[in-house]
Amino acid sequence: MPRSVRFRKVSGGVTAARGFSAAGVRCGIKSNRRALDLALLLSDRPCSVAGAFTTIKAPAASVKWSRAVVKKGVARAVVVNSGNANACTGVRGERDAMAAAIAAAQELGLEPGHVCVASTGIIGHPLPMDKIVAGILDATEILAPDDEGAQAFARAIMTTDTVEKTIAAQTVIGRKVLTVGGSCKGAGMISPNLATMLSFVTTDAAISPGMLRRALGAAAGRSFNCITVDGDMSTNDTLLVLANGAAGNARITRPGRAFDQFAALLEFVCIHLAKKIVRDGEGATKFVEIRVRRAANDADARTVAAAVANSPLVKCAIHGGDPNWGRIVCKAAGCGAAFDPDKTRLRIGGALAYAKGVPAKTPLSDLEAAMKGDEVHIDLDLGLGRGAATMWTCDLSRDYVRINADYHT
Amino acid sequence: MPRSVRFRKVSGGVTAARGFSAAGVRCGIKSNRRALDLALLLSDRPCSVAGAFTTIKAPAASVKWSRAVVKKGVARAVVVNSGNANACTGVRGERDAMAAAIAAAQELGLEPGHVCVASTGIIGHPLPMDKIVAGILDATEILAPDDEGAQAFARAIMTTDTVEKTIAAQTVIGRKVLTVGGSCKGAGMISPNLATMLSFVTTDAAISPGMLRRALGAAAGRSFNCITVDGDMSTNDTLLVLANGAAGNARITRPGRAFDQFAALLEFVCIHLAKKIVRDGEGATKFVEIRVRRAANDADARTVAAAVANSPLVKCAIHGGDPNWGRIVCKAAGCGAAFDPDKTRLRIGGALAYAKGVPAKTPLSDLEAAMKGDEVHIDLDLGLGRGAATMWTCDLSRDYVRINADYHT
Repeated sequence: MPRSVRFRKVSGGVTAARGFSAAGVRCGIKSNRRALDLALLLSDRPCSVAGAFTTIKAPAASVKWSRAVVKKGVARAVVVNSGNANACTGVRGERDAMAAAIAAAQELGLEPGHVCVASTGIIGHPLPMDKIVAGILDATEILAPDDEGAQAFARAIMTTDTVEKTIAAQTVIGRKVLTVGGSCKGAGMISPNLATMLSFVTTDAAISPGMLRRALGAAAGRSFNCITVDGDMSTNDTLLVLANGAAGNARITRPGRAFDQFAALLEFVCIHLAKKIVRDGEGATKFVEIRVRRAANDADARTVAAAVANSPLVKCAIHGGDPNWGRIVCKAAGCGAAFDPDKTRLRIGGALAYAKGVPAKTPLSDLEAAMKGDEVHIDLDLGLGRGAATMWTCDLSRDYVRINADYHT
Repeated sequence: MPRSVRFRKVSGGVTAARGFSAAGVRCGIKSNRRALDLALLLSDRPCSVAGAFTTIKAPAASVKWSRAVVKKGVARAVVVNSGNANACTGVRGERDAMAAAIAAAQELGLEPGHVCVASTGIIGHPLPMDKIVAGILDATEILAPDDEGAQAFARAIMTTDTVEKTIAAQTVIGRKVLTVGGSCKGAGMISPNLATMLSFVTTDAAISPGMLRRALGAAAGRSFNCITVDGDMSTNDTLLVLANGAAGNARITRPGRAFDQFAALLEFVCIHLAKKIVRDGEGATKFVEIRVRRAANDADARTVAAAVANSPLVKCAIHGGDPNWGRIVCKAAGCGAAFDPDKTRLRIGGALAYAKGVPAKTPLSDLEAAMKGDEVHIDLDLGLGRGAATMWTCDLSRDYVRINADYHT
């Protein structure tokens, strides 16, 4: 990201960019009578679309459908339901995902192939299609290009999330103001390579599908692919970006300064959304950043960062505010990456905890202080090469267990 | 294991086999004033010794020392301390491990190179050598070849364990009664390829170091390498087997019927000890067996079994008694092993939960019943090849978090 680029945060989420309207309604999938569970997003003109999806070998029906839409590169609308993942539902599930796209297309006057779908919620139950269709009709009626529409959209995609996750920001490219905004959901089953994470980003930038795909790939690699709550990937992970060109900028069709600026803005928005997911991790009380530097290579750095980020022992220690650096070193030494205890340095919140095979002389009270706040920064210098990686995660609390043990199939 | 082989369980642990005596004392490492923390094991004659150790890249000093002893194949004694792992302690730690072996050797009239050492407990603190040496003297005085000695030994190696873990069994080989007995400790940081697990097995079988190593490798692969509590490997994992030949059988020096019988008995004892560790997993309320069959190959089967066994989401669902088969299928589909939803069958406690891409018609109440007991059996048939693997684990409870968040560095 060029250092000179500056962004301005603005209100609105998926409707911050010109030409987008959104809605969220209750169609009756969730048992909570006040919970919204169907969201709709519409652009007033065709969009370039790019996406990233779960790499699981049993993807949900919605993922298969939206992947096909993204492959063609053009979309105008997205239908999302929460409360039911439409995963492990076989042929019937695929028919239902298609039916949802068709219902929205008919209602909005679009081609079905321009409607993406996404689902999140319980696995293995057929979608209640009558409710979905009724919800699409209701949502169409209240589609709004304002904060209210964006907020209802953000609420309607939530499952175990405790807060809506929304951001929008602007930059100026060639005298044109470009806006990128988005909303996401996800709190458990969060892991690199996406996870039970749905994220919808809209922009009024004019950009070709190919360049949008390229910008999204880079942004996802530095945002959603850096977060983990529990190491579990889901059947439904979906990240979509729609760019409708309403900003009127010269269409971005190749690398260059305009592309770099747009890509940086997209990355800014994606990082913001990804961090919001970690902060809202199931039962989370702390945000944890794990930076691994000077690993033998980038792959090793990522292996170490992910191993530390997913270690229940490390996450429990962080929850308890215990500077248990031994567990961190242990995890780094045992995960398979190249490791030499005599070359390793571990800092917690800037305080040296371990260096050259032995504990550092830093007073325990300093290390304890570094573990006390809402944010914990773990910095592992492996002293071996140039590999680097960063992961964001949260602590592991009794509430994580409560939420996931009491969840009812 | 030949089906004809029958074993008889007997009392006593590490002292069940002839010629072994043991002791456990309090030397003052642990803060709990009633807790034993130093254990001693002695054979009245030289033993063939074999071992398996953590594969972590920062092993504790005790592991380095004992590995060297095992390499030579002969040992007579083992000194174990709990409460301090002597890990991440640098050169000083290595000197201390050697000093403990020398102190025991002097007191018992042995060569230091015939004394193994093992440590478990907190990482990064130097061993209190004055206490260790005093403890060795105390333990030497009360060494006993009976149940009392074995029980004190079993108690003195415990850390967060809530119960002693001991077993002994006998078989008859060529008219001679052979005994194998052992004790182990471990409750958290348990993962395949050993884990914070110490296990000591004794036998009066006459067997060469090479054949003992071979029998141990096979037994460990089907026992300690099949258990996981939290996927964390430790710096100190140690499994030792000492065979002193006091049974008077024809020394086993090559494959054959006698070797097979001995290996089966050793495996029986190791499986028993390994399962005890899982049942006593930190916060565990349920024992979970995960069997994967018809995977593309054995490595894939193991990947799937380990992924399911280490999934916090799956473990929380089991804790809550929730037949959340979706989380199990998800984990199997997302762990990187070959997977085809349409060929996969999942059974929980024998009841079909998922088959051919969709939920089975089994009533939810039947699946719930299968999750209710102390033992949960998960059976995944991937329908792809001949690969198979079994893992044993436990559920993830609020108490796991409490134990590991409140632990003090």
